[in-house]
Amino acid sequence: MSHNTFGHLFRLTTWGESHGPALGAVIDGCPPGLALSEADIQPYLDKRRPGTSRHVTQRREADEVRILSGTFEDERTPGPVTTGSPISLMIENTDQRSKDYSDIRDRWRPGHADFTYDMKYGVRDYRGGGRSSARETAARVAAGAIARKVLGDGISIRAVLVQIGPRAIDRTAWDWAAVEQNDFFCPDPGTAARWAEDLDEIRKAGSSVGAMVECHVSGVPAGWGAPVYGKLDADLASAMMSINAAKGVEIGAGMEAAAMRGEDAADEMRLDADGKPAFSSNHNGGVLGGISTGQDLVVRLAIKPTSSIRIEKQTLTRSLEEVAVSTKGRHDPCVGIRAVPVAEAMAALVLADHKLRALAQNATP
Amino acid sequence: MSHNTFGHLFRLTTWGESHGPALGAVIDGCPPGLALSEADIQPYLDKRRPGTSRHVTQRREADEVRILSGTFEDERTPGPVTTGSPISLMIENTDQRSKDYSDIRDRWRPGHADFTYDMKYGVRDYRGGGRSSARETAARVAAGAIARKVLGDGISIRAVLVQIGPRAIDRTAWDWAAVEQNDFFCPDPGTAARWAEDLDEIRKAGSSVGAMVECHVSGVPAGWGAPVYGKLDADLASAMMSINAAKGVEIGAGMEAAAMRGEDAADEMRLDADGKPAFSSNHNGGVLGGISTGQDLVVRLAIKPTSSIRIEKQTLTRSLEEVAVSTKGRHDPCVGIRAVPVAEAMAALVLADHKLRALAQNATP
Amino acid sequence: MSHNTFGHLFRLTTWGESHGPALGAVIDGCPPGLALSEADIQPYLDKRRPGTSRHVTQRREADEVRILSGTFEDERTPGPVTTGSPISLMIENTDQRSKDYSDIRDRWRPGHADFTYDMKYGVRDYRGGGRSSARETAARVAAGAIARKVLGDGISIRAVLVQIGPRAIDRTAWDWAAVEQNDFFCPDPGTAARWAEDLDEIRKAGSSVGAMVECHVSGVPAGWGAPVYGKLDADLASAMMSINAAKGVEIGAGMEAAAMRGEDAADEMRLDADGKPAFSSNHNGGVLGGISTGQDLVVRLAIKPTSSIRIEKQTLTRSLEEVAVSTKGRHDPCVGIRAVPVAEAMAALVLADHKLRALAQNATP
Amino acid sequence: MSHNTFGHLFRLTTWGESHGPALGAVIDGCPPGLALSEADIQPYLDKRRPGTSRHVTQRREADEVRILSGTFEDERTPGPVTTGSPISLMIENTDQRSKDYSDIRDRWRPGHADFTYDMKYGVRDYRGGGRSSARETAARVAAGAIARKVLGDGISIRAVLVQIGPRAIDRTAWDWAAVEQNDFFCPDPGTAARWAEDLDEIRKAGSSVGAMVECHVSGVPAGWGAPVYGKLDADLASAMMSINAAKGVEIGAGMEAAAMRGEDAADEMRLDADGKPAFSSNHNGGVLGGISTGQDLVVRLAIKPTSSIRIEKQTLTRSLEEVAVSTKGRHDPCVGIRAVPVAEAMAALVLADHKLRALAQNATP
Repeated sequence: MSHNTFGHLFRLTTWGESHGPALGAVIDGCPPGLALSEADIQPYLDKRRPGTSRHVTQRREADEVRILSGTFEDERTPGPVTTGSPISLMIENTDQRSKDYSDIRDRWRPGHADFTYDMKYGVRDYRGGGRSSARETAARVAAGAIARKVLGDGISIRAVLVQIGPRAIDRTAWDWAAVEQNDFFCPDPGTAARWAEDLDEIRKAGSSVGAMVECHVSGVPAGWGAPVYGKLDADLASAMMSINAAKGVEIGAGMEAAAMRGEDAADEMRLDADGKPAFSSNHNGGVLGGISTGQDLVVRLAIKPTSSIRIEKQTLTRSLEEVAVSTKGRHDPCVGIRAVPVAEAMAALVLADHKLRALAQNATP
Repeated sequence: MSHNTFGHLFRLTTWGESHGPALGAVIDGCPPGLALSEADIQPYLDKRRPGTSRHVTQRREADEVRILSGTFEDERTPGPVTTGSPISLMIENTDQRSKDYSDIRDRWRPGHADFTYDMKYGVRDYRGGGRSSARETAARVAAGAIARKVLGDGISIRAVLVQIGPRAIDRTAWDWAAVEQNDFFCPDPGTAARWAEDLDEIRKAGSSVGAMVECHVSGVPAGWGAPVYGKLDADLASAMMSINAAKGVEIGAGMEAAAMRGEDAADEMRLDADGKPAFSSNHNGGVLGGISTGQDLVVRLAIKPTSSIRIEKQTLTRSLEEVAVSTKGRHDPCVGIRAVPVAEAMAALVLADHKLRALAQNATP
Repeated sequence: MSHNTFGHLFRLTTWGESHGPALGAVIDGCPPGLALSEADIQPYLDKRRPGTSRHVTQRREADEVRILSGTFEDERTPGPVTTGSPISLMIENTDQRSKDYSDIRDRWRPGHADFTYDMKYGVRDYRGGGRSSARETAARVAAGAIARKVLGDGISIRAVLVQIGPRAIDRTAWDWAAVEQNDFFCPDPGTAARWAEDLDEIRKAGSSVGAMVECHVSGVPAGWGAPVYGKLDADLASAMMSINAAKGVEIGAGMEAAAMRGEDAADEMRLDADGKPAFSSNHNGGVLGGISTGQDLVVRLAIKPTSSIRIEKQTLTRSLEEVAVSTKGRHDPCVGIRAVPVAEAMAALVLADHKLRALAQNATP
Repeated sequence: MSHNTFGHLFRLTTWGESHGPALGAVIDGCPPGLALSEADIQPYLDKRRPGTSRHVTQRREADEVRILSGTFEDERTPGPVTTGSPISLMIENTDQRSKDYSDIRDRWRPGHADFTYDMKYGVRDYRGGGRSSARETAARVAAGAIARKVLGDGISIRAVLVQIGPRAIDRTAWDWAAVEQNDFFCPDPGTAARWAEDLDEIRKAGSSVGAMVECHVSGVPAGWGAPVYGKLDADLASAMMSINAAKGVEIGAGMEAAAMRGEDAADEMRLDADGKPAFSSNHNGGVLGGISTGQDLVVRLAIKPTSSIRIEKQTLTRSLEEVAVSTKGRHDPCVGIRAVPVAEAMAALVLADHKLRALAQNATP
């Protein structure tokens, strides 16, 4: 049992603090023989990197990943391939700006883990949030790139933002091609433009806002996941809830299912044009009884607004003084934007793990 | 890694099919010296039992639990106490009525795990849903009673229904005392009466409806849970999502956090009357950075409407014929009602596990 | 992490005390579709059962196993088959004779876990050794029968005794057919006869003696096990050391390898008659670098002499009085005999687990 | 389940190949607040390092460790302390000499994992043994230093060599002070001198020889370890068997217990001078029923002779040619010597894990 390890067969262990020399990941259980080099991983980190638009943190991190173990290449391999040994990834921290945090050393910032870390451990690396910093997610994103290799090209994982603050997208205007063309991973260009205006206002006001991420996965065969405590949707729920600032997770119809009638929520079955089993709807989000149906997985997670804002809030110090706190320096007005590639990575990690778990119990030897 | 085991240090393994001879649980890791007998467990099962109101399934199960191992008593103990060895619980199935299911043997009922089990395993115990049946939750509820012993009397776990179908409670009318006085675990007596009417209609119409469960836990000290992949809220999320028919889980402000502003979502800190740290609000639901704050935990889960309804739906058989399916026999018009004690049990199991995990890393030896 | 669970993918959890109502096992992770009924398990328990010869305990246990979950049968299956759900086994205790133990309630019998249980838990079921009793091994043997199903007929697991007390077998007289024909699982009929005489003397003297078990497995393909902490030999070592009274485990040349020269210990490779890779010797016992070579696995374990003997020994009571203790009643003069089927079961459990682990990382999807 | 992770609560994951850029470890579950810097770890690595005597490999590795995460220091801490977050250690490889291995790229060296890795993974990093190299043990030794911090100064872990080849020490001449004064971790100076001569001969002959390591631990309180599958001795067995070239593990009387009588093997109990429970002997090696007794733990492991020798042996290549193989370059004539600090590290890791496990189930909250 390990607080810093995710997964059972495809296992990710991450390490590293926001202001330590580096952060990293060890991936164990990866099948051998998969082509893997830094070039397979770096693009996903770049998608996540701060400083890529005016709407995200202006901290300049190169986030350059190195593979330190687990691959091998000689003149007979087509390039570096995984060996089945643990893959160690490292990303050095280059732009910490420690002095931005010295004044909040003793303050328990509302909405952050400062208070809870002190209660739990007695000692806390306060620089940039230490281990609780969202920079840990860089390690997840890097590992997610390897998980995608395990899943293969037949499985597509795409996450988008469907809401920033109270403004949701217009689903009738959904265009996958638009997602790469704005700063918000938004599939609705009209709403993306409105979000840009909303966030400029919010930033100027020293405020922040929440967001809703929606992740679609297609190509998962039926049969992944297992009943009771190995459920695919339960694992997706804990994976998404482990993302910083997540406050809710839903699948398919989600929380709205509570208001529905059985005859409306049912996903009827029929034969498709090829005479294969198909469903007429997808309220279940691709999972039934904890097992994938073969339909698209649809998972949503709600990200709360950034707790580090310029607007003053009341809090306590370690010595129990009541003080006001206001965060200056570099922060996101909407951390939900950067959660998009992290949600994709978590989905990839859960699915790679489930793929191996399904092989273990069900493969013909 | 086990699909049928929940928890890490306080570990529950369940077994048993709906129409097998019995179902049961093995609880490992329970501390020694706790008073434990069947009388500590049976009341929780009775709360869950079918046939207790006209609104739930009319299957008559005694659900009588036996403790087969893990406790010991002699003239020097105050009564039976746990020994630290695994505790084995067994509940015999007494009222299966196999013949109710023979006609659906080859049908993939919409919304059930029939199709996914066949895809995954190739063989399926179709009687009453086999292993996917909600009867497995009897084992969880029994284990939850033992988890409460580990937590002790200082921690209170109470779940209620806050919504059936589109009708939500009036939160201003919340009265904990009302919860035990209606068939719905509802804290608002006025809405409870309306729900009774709603369900009578729905049952007559051969339909079903979803529900929303809300679970409150008070008395949890600050410091339980751990960052990154040991988060208390992530574990609560997967625990609740593992309950049959769950489609979404949220904590604190939940999915609504996506629409909020940072200054509204922040839970400010102040000193209470005794000069101790306290929070001015609880949008975070009692967890920050994955660690408990000492505030009440507030978790909600959405339960989809029962998939077994009298209204006909289209589906396929194993031999890929398109057929209509309609379920007769004994079924719940709203499985959310029976999910209430199950949600309490899952919360207890997660917390007992986290209590032991906190002791492991942080106890003064 | 569970003290009462063995294995990772093919997982066994056992429960039950010597003088409780029953003992049992839950097996999780078993592949679906394997034929399984009580008739597949009972013979292995009968091989283990007390009262089958004058040389083992005269406690009369029927040791009748029941399968309570995890299998399914209807008119289309060839018989009961595993469903992939957890398999629950139960064996009721029928002949406990509690009163045999009341006088040792407060005594810490030398060589038993009485003292250590009291130090660890504070409370102890002293009847017949409670959870530490060798009766727990009945559950292992039952589970081992299921593990053998997972392995299939191509893998043969056979354990024998090669030494009782100071008298070892004559390896040049080894005859597998002899093993079933004496009370000692001995492959050398001459030595078996001498052992019978030795044990009659030892029993009369109120003494006991140790033994050495040797387990051979053939048919394991190359490639099971994994480097570093997933080594097949390390898992075999802990499996065998977990058997009551085990004090040492060795593989291949074992402890004697310490005295050998490299050129003598090396297992050279050559081509066999079919042009396939083969080894010229097997000092490594079938494992290299923690991975199976395809050769026979050869594992030995040393079982210490029974600690419950009639000869008086000095010990303490719970209230720290110095007393003499002497065990009357039913006991084995050589528990090593009954360890033989247990060793086979442990080997089967380790190998079934490793088979699934190899499939997980290496199977072509 | 992870092949490269050891332990349950105090968890070590190692990574890195012999000829990769670096090797390392991630330690999760370490309690917070323990003083820790590189200076606490480096001495143990130096004890292990090649090139420290003419009897071990002449590869010149600095083996300098860096701590990359998991500790924190500011003006208020006494120095760097653990935070409870994962501790990442890295050791760069500086002296690989790749060209020493190119001729054996396609050869399956007898006694090495070359053949089994190819069978398992299909791809193998052949340089210096890749992941199977004994260099991985540097990571274990570094982690063992941290485990010792968790155990505290009251627990002493000391391993020695008691046999090289056929020559065993004279136990009546045992002097702990001698261990640091010869190249063999030998407590008997007379035998150490003879071993030096023996090894000079063996090296000149291009041969190698096995050895026996014996590890003593004092200060472990009674009550660590748990019955059935959490046994302290079973965990020590798998820990020691996971060390490269280990072929047997024994505890206390070990394999010799098979030949003993019950009245001789029994460890009687009495009161010591302070009126506390004590034992009159220690045939059990400090563990009864899988739980520590409070006596010294005594564990022995047999290390087979190095498989890389100059004497020619027959083997096969990947293309199934029969060839002779002879290893030139830098090798140990007796790898048992370097296993001594590794055995200490493994004991420390097992015990730190068991300390936390005991706290989890038994601590008074």
